[in-house]
Amino acid sequence: MLKKQNSNFIKNAPNQVREYISGHDSVRISSLGGFGDVTQNMFVYEFIPNGDASKSQIIIVDCGVGFPEEDAFGVDLQIPDTHYLQDKKDRILGIFITHGHEDHIGAVRFILPILGQNIPVFAPKLAAAFIEARLSEVQVRANLQVYDELTPPITKGPFIIDPIRVTHSIPDTFHFAINTPIGIFYHGSDFKFDLFPLDGKGADYQKIARVGQGKVIALMSDSLGSDHEGFSPSESSIAENFKHEIVSAKGRVFVTSISSNIVRWTQAIEYAKSVGRKVVIVGFSVDRAIKIAKDLGYLTLNDTDIVPVERVKNFNENKLIFLVAGFAGQPDSALSKMVMGKHKIKVKSGDKVIFSSPDYIPGTTSNIYNMIDTLSKMGAEVVYGEKEELHVSGHGYQKEHALLINLLKPKFLLPIGGNYRHIKSYQQMAKKLGYTDDQLVLPDFDSSVTFHNNGTYDTNYHISIRKVLIDGFGVGDVGTTVLRDRKLLAEDGMFSVVLLMNKESGEMVKPPVILSRGFVFMKENTELMDFLKVEITNKFKQATSSPANMDFIREEVQAYVEEIIYKKTGRQPMVLPLVIEV
Amino acid sequence: MLKKQNSNFIKNAPNQVREYISGHDSVRISSLGGFGDVTQNMFVYEFIPNGDASKSQIIIVDCGVGFPEEDAFGVDLQIPDTHYLQDKKDRILGIFITHGHEDHIGAVRFILPILGQNIPVFAPKLAAAFIEARLSEVQVRANLQVYDELTPPITKGPFIIDPIRVTHSIPDTFHFAINTPIGIFYHGSDFKFDLFPLDGKGADYQKIARVGQGKVIALMSDSLGSDHEGFSPSESSIAENFKHEIVSAKGRVFVTSISSNIVRWTQAIEYAKSVGRKVVIVGFSVDRAIKIAKDLGYLTLNDTDIVPVERVKNFNENKLIFLVAGFAGQPDSALSKMVMGKHKIKVKSGDKVIFSSPDYIPGTTSNIYNMIDTLSKMGAEVVYGEKEELHVSGHGYQKEHALLINLLKPKFLLPIGGNYRHIKSYQQMAKKLGYTDDQLVLPDFDSSVTFHNNGTYDTNYHISIRKVLIDGFGVGDVGTTVLRDRKLLAEDGMFSVVLLMNKESGEMVKPPVILSRGFVFMKENTELMDFLKVEITNKFKQATSSPANMDFIREEVQAYVEEIIYKKTGRQPMVLPLVIEV
Repeated sequence: MLKKQNSNFIKNAPNQVREYISGHDSVRISSLGGFGDVTQNMFVYEFIPNGDASKSQIIIVDCGVGFPEEDAFGVDLQIPDTHYLQDKKDRILGIFITHGHEDHIGAVRFILPILGQNIPVFAPKLAAAFIEARLSEVQVRANLQVYDELTPPITKGPFIIDPIRVTHSIPDTFHFAINTPIGIFYHGSDFKFDLFPLDGKGADYQKIARVGQGKVIALMSDSLGSDHEGFSPSESSIAENFKHEIVSAKGRVFVTSISSNIVRWTQAIEYAKSVGRKVVIVGFSVDRAIKIAKDLGYLTLNDTDIVPVERVKNFNENKLIFLVAGFAGQPDSALSKMVMGKHKIKVKSGDKVIFSSPDYIPGTTSNIYNMIDTLSKMGAEVVYGEKEELHVSGHGYQKEHALLINLLKPKFLLPIGGNYRHIKSYQQMAKKLGYTDDQLVLPDFDSSVTFHNNGTYDTNYHISIRKVLIDGFGVGDVGTTVLRDRKLLAEDGMFSVVLLMNKESGEMVKPPVILSRGFVFMKENTELMDFLKVEITNKFKQATSSPANMDFIREEVQAYVEEIIYKKTGRQPMVLPLVIEV
Repeated sequence: MLKKQNSNFIKNAPNQVREYISGHDSVRISSLGGFGDVTQNMFVYEFIPNGDASKSQIIIVDCGVGFPEEDAFGVDLQIPDTHYLQDKKDRILGIFITHGHEDHIGAVRFILPILGQNIPVFAPKLAAAFIEARLSEVQVRANLQVYDELTPPITKGPFIIDPIRVTHSIPDTFHFAINTPIGIFYHGSDFKFDLFPLDGKGADYQKIARVGQGKVIALMSDSLGSDHEGFSPSESSIAENFKHEIVSAKGRVFVTSISSNIVRWTQAIEYAKSVGRKVVIVGFSVDRAIKIAKDLGYLTLNDTDIVPVERVKNFNENKLIFLVAGFAGQPDSALSKMVMGKHKIKVKSGDKVIFSSPDYIPGTTSNIYNMIDTLSKMGAEVVYGEKEELHVSGHGYQKEHALLINLLKPKFLLPIGGNYRHIKSYQQMAKKLGYTDDQLVLPDFDSSVTFHNNGTYDTNYHISIRKVLIDGFGVGDVGTTVLRDRKLLAEDGMFSVVLLMNKESGEMVKPPVILSRGFVFMKENTELMDFLKVEITNKFKQATSSPANMDFIREEVQAYVEEIIYKKTGRQPMVLPLVIEV
């Protein structure tokens, strides 16, 4: 498996970090999750007065988790690296959240305890509720403040932050116009321009245009959808297909989607109710999302319309719709358990399962198709993206980006929220609008972008970004060594041999004891094991001396065992000799 | 990660295997790779005379490898399980190969030595050459016989096998009309009906129609494309885009595709030559495929048009096209090495890289997109499927299946070469043509389908199909235990502790020696290790006796260490205590 070569991202790293044009104010933008990443969003806006970085003042936009590469064995989550902020904590004026997706809010519970729980966190209503639910699980307290489109611009030190409603695949998504002494920065995080939004809440085009009448220095823009031409389809464009699938079902109906996709659940519930079906919520994350959305008035669902899983038996099959967590096949999710037959709800012939969800998310595609196959085998009718239009992306296409750029007329464009291929597509699109290369900011993974008050910018400053992995209770303690070992162990297992010796005489005290897992099945390979014991004993005799050099013996045995195992089996288990003096 | 639940496939497995209607001839079809699988194609056709299975005569169609699930750590390949043939070797009359893709020919080198190297292998010219090249690598000899559309029907015992030319993403692809004493079986392996094939060699529609004038009992049909409506696009439909990308390039051009896709390479070479570019072949598999295709006359390429990699420097950048192996990111492939900067050819700004290949193959999608990102970072312009029409599938869509069915008018339909979701789509399509449920054969993973001479069939007979995995030199010796261990090791590593004791006195002779990898970084966790040593010593003291029960001690220590490690770290490494008497 290939892994991302972050190091390749660092091109032309300067030997010396250039400091600021003295006497000039500047704004430095850093991505603590790294530029060129879709997830773990966390951006630092730093106003540096008069070239003195030690007096900078800071706001942060978003604080999300990332999802590790497939070769990050055993690692659950990844979070932004906050080392850069270590000596600047007292200058952080606030954290501003754009919307409630995990890759924008999920790291708050890990990072607030590091940076300080008094830092105010500004979030829209739905995101704030999601954050609060997560924080209460880990008993972390936060200074949460809710904003909406009516909130007056929020002043924090040299920054005035003005939230602007946009549309996305979760309600309550905002952009920020960030006013600074040197001009406006527009933080255009994840969005699309849904001109026919199902909840009636469109983007505030007027307000964006008003921002554009000011001096917009740079647009930090979502770029994930920019490799698609045209305008992205509206949520309402799938409504007809989605409704048809639900309304036409004869038996039980299961719908799975991204848990936070409140609008999709609202649709599902509405269509189901129109044909007299009641709602069964299956899985923790959907349950939480729907409860929060209901409490906040984003979704109407009477208690009498809900049937708890335990009471399903009392209803006719065509009177129920199941909203199920786990479209991506996460191992502990409700849908995975149903597919594996480990859930109390058993899928059977006559059921219909609707995947109203993306079918490509790195690392999950095979999971999704395996689930579809197994559900089909169980007799269910499965409808999914490859065959039907049942999902639209929450990220705008090229024409939506062109519209935002036209409304804002920013001097510089800094695409974020995409991998390199999306950033490249975004730039090609921008060139069609007349932007030139020097207006397209393309920072390295770990560059900061510093905008100066003389109208220029540079990307010379680099920060240290390491992978901060969450495994079990540990934050950041799974490093490259541990991961490399897990990878080696995964490939061909391990082969350990314990050699007990008398150091003085240099003699072996007992025959070698072998401990091996994941290499070959020991019970069926006694011949190989006996052979290896003899070879190891011989090698030991060659390598030993009186008195013995135990490190030398260990190294000799290791090299030799690696070699003969490879010759005999073609495999390369991790070979671990233990030479112990008794 | 979810894994395929093959066991779910076995529904209604009968307690007793029903034997045959006495006095009746029958034909039994078994899939040694399992029904419902796309790869590891190997089908057994068995004529059973007069209900006496011990007198059956056998032909085999295809002999391909499979690609393991993502959780089959360290396993390279999977091959069909030939246990069923163990006691029938002398009744195998021939192996008939449909075309030269690895999932149809790749297992010949493993399976011929098992079944007997004298069994004749009939293959079309190109597939035969691929097989021969592979066999020579491992010094296996085969009785290879080449057929083409002019070959008269091949008679083998009760079977008369008539090859019929069709189109697919590799030249020289055939279907078989298999005549038996009870009627005709049409083996419709991987195909599409390309009505405008670039090499001018279309399918033999006339011959298919003539087969359809006989008594066609069953059509075994490729079903992979059957979840797409309509007719699949012709190879020629991408020609214009593909040509444009090559012809318009200003610097170096790299093209990657499936190595065996000779027609695509032919196109690339033709377009490149039209603008004066010479050809550089990069990577073993492409080199071999092109050499073979050239030798056999499938591809025209003069030696003067080829530039060896070493001589690249002598040419202008716009005078070269590179045909590169490894579109799917296989770790040892040329493209992977180029992406990682480990190849002598370095990708740089101004290069164009064209992915003329599928972007979804189970387990490879993330690899492909990571390569695209890294190549973009390196400054190359990357054109790929998501943005451009640069690849068409080799598998027919619904209308092509409807056409084949209309030409053949088979009584029964048995979809193969697809996962369950494709099989289901195929059946829905067939119902639109008027087929009824009892005409649609849907065997379990391990069922055989037995067609009787009274016009009926049953799926009562089951064969044993286990996963036969190839790891290193071992064929089939990586079982579930080894894989389960690798998976556990991959998740959280291993933690081993060696306890040296005096069995008589029950005393510990030395403090515990810890050996751990992939769990936590030992050097940074001395405190944890010291804590565990103390705890283990205490537990040992509780569990020991005089004389000591060493198994009991090991079990007690193991359970206790698992518990405290989980409590302390939230992780679950494989815990392996070794209690050794000294």
